[in-house]
This record gives sequence, C-alpha cells and structure tokens, in this order.
Amino acid sequence: MTHPRTNTGITIWFTGLCGSGKTTLSRALEQELAGRGYEVEVLDGDLMRQHLCKGLGYSKADRDENIRRIGFVAGLLTRHGVIALVAAISPYRAIRDEVRRSIGNFLEVYVNAPLEVCERRDQKGLYRKARAGEIRGFTGIDDPYEPPLSPELECRTDIESVEECVAKILRVLEPRLPKRP
Amino acid sequence: MTHPRTNTGITIWFTGLCGSGKTTLSRALEQELAGRGYEVEVLDGDLMRQHLCKGLGYSKADRDENIRRIGFVAGLLTRHGVIALVAAISPYRAIRDEVRRSIGNFLEVYVNAPLEVCERRDQKGLYRKARAGEIRGFTGIDDPYEPPLSPELECRTDIESVEECVAKILRVLEPRLPKRP
Repeated sequence: MTHPRTNTGITIWFTGLCGSGKTTLSRALEQELAGRGYEVEVLDGDLMRQHLCKGLGYSKADRDENIRRIGFVAGLLTRHGVIALVAAISPYRAIRDEVRRSIGNFLEVYVNAPLEVCERRDQKGLYRKARAGEIRGFTGIDDPYEPPLSPELECRTDIESVEECVAKILRVLEPRLPKRP
Repeated sequence: MTHPRTNTGITIWFTGLCGSGKTTLSRALEQELAGRGYEVEVLDGDLMRQHLCKGLGYSKADRDENIRRIGFVAGLLTRHGVIALVAAISPYRAIRDEVRRSIGNFLEVYVNAPLEVCERRDQKGLYRKARAGEIRGFTGIDDPYEPPLSPELECRTDIESVEECVAKILRVLEPRLPKRP
C-alpha cells in the first residue's frame, strides 16, 4: 500500500433498510456492467458478515466495524480498477462518510422504500421476528437508520422498477466508469 | 460473486516465522512488479489484523480465522487480475491448503530462516518478550509452526540475498503472470 495509484475503479454504495432492494439493485447493476466487460464485484453485507465479520454483532460499535471492513475491501478493489458494489444497510451516516473519504471514488445510492413497504416484503421474515421481539436492535424497528443527506442518487424502489433504477444509476455512473480492461 | 471469471491474477503467499523476511520479500517483489506495470497489492498480516481482524487473538481458531479472511480478500483481488502478495506467518498447514484450494491460482513461498537467525534479528523485540514470558503463544517459541511440505518455492533468507530471492520467485512466477493491464 505504498505506491501512489490512480483510482481507476469506483465504489457504489447501496444503503437502506432491510428489504429496500439493495441486493436486487446491486445484482442487476452487476449483470449490466459485467456484460459490458467491466471488472465488477458485489460485496453483500450478509456475505461479508460470514467472511470478514464472524463474531461481530449489531451494536453501533460492531456495525461500524463491519462497515469499516467492507469499506476497506471495497477500497482495495477500487484502487485496482474494479467496480465494487456494496449492498449493506450501513445505518450510520458518520461511518458511511468516513468510508467515502477513505475510498475517494465513491457514489452513494440511497435505496429508499418506506418502512411499511420493506416490512410488507419481509423476504427473510426478519421484520416479523423483530416485531415479535425475537430479534433486538433491528434497523428501522428498534435501531436507528440515518438516511444520507446528499447521496449521489436516490432510488425509490416502492415506485420505480429495477430497470428504471439501474438506468438512473448508469446515467450518473457512466462518466465516472473506469477504462475497460 | 455469481459470474464465472477467468482467474487472471495470482496470489503469492509468503509463510514463515516472525522475522524470517516475509514483509521484506513481498515489498521488494511488489516494487519489481509495480515497476513492470502490474496491479499488485501487499496484504501484510500485521496490517490485516488492524483492518479486518480487530478482536482476534492468537489461539489456533483465531489464527485460522485471520488467515481465512486474508485469503478471502486475496481471492477477490486475484479473480480481478491483481497480484496479491500475502505476508503472514500462517503457521498452520491445513488452513494454508484450504486457502490455496479456494483461491486456485496460488503460489506458496516458504520464507525459511532458522529460528536462531530470526530470533537474533528480532526487529520488533517480540522474541525477547516471548522468551521473557511477556507474550504467550508466540510462533516458534511456545506455539507451533508447520512448514509447507511442497511449497512452489523456498527462500533461505539466512543465506540468500533479497535480490536472489526475488529473482528466484520471478522465474517461477513469470509464466503465470496475468496479462498486463
């Protein structure tokens, strides 16, 4: 990590409530970008917890450490020309901004759907458990979510389709894409 | 992580006792490869503990988890065309072999200097502390080191110079280098 480098890649950071559509959007965008020949990697919060964050819980400190680690890996990929797509609730604004500063080439996408919509979707059954008190510290229920104040993009997944969201992201992303390998 | 990819990069894994010369060799090789225009990243065990492994100790389970995480990141870089140079004691053979299998394009360098040489160097003063009982579970003193049985390369840093070692690694590495970006 001693050589100065051109930041050729970029990190696209999807933040939002559980069930807001972060993974869906990141996978759709991944497919589009991979199809165009870019090096692209999805860093999904759930998978990262398995690979990098075993033992971390859901306290603020543990959530921050989780995000810091994902940000570290996204930063490594970004400086080697990869498009890193991070899909992670990342509820705290300060740590998202810290990661943004450390990575440099960074684009924040606020994946926004009202809580009641996310809760209705409840793909993993987690909202039900949180409402039943079986899970504590669940973002949006009994743990805070701090929406971005000035994200590069906002996707309203309750009223915009996946295709519309991806097209919208691509319009902002295109001028900032790395050289194709 | 759903798209099949060509494993264009490679991981070069430096294993050996503390003070054997892993960081020195990886930095020298980094400089050489970066000078030739390759994407290269050193994943140094000590730095990785700060960034990815806060809270992990030095029990076998924690050491294995540490190595698994470094291996995960090296694997991500490798499949995106980067040359990942890992410098980590990684004392246990089974976990090194697990990482080798999961990464695929992998080259193991046994950085071998006799314990008495490493102890004499003692750049960080850790051997002194381990001998004094101030540090417990120190590899080579009161914790095991399992040398590789069939590493692609062995560097005897007590009798070979850094330049000789780097030249030796390059001879084995060259046919396996990725396409230059």
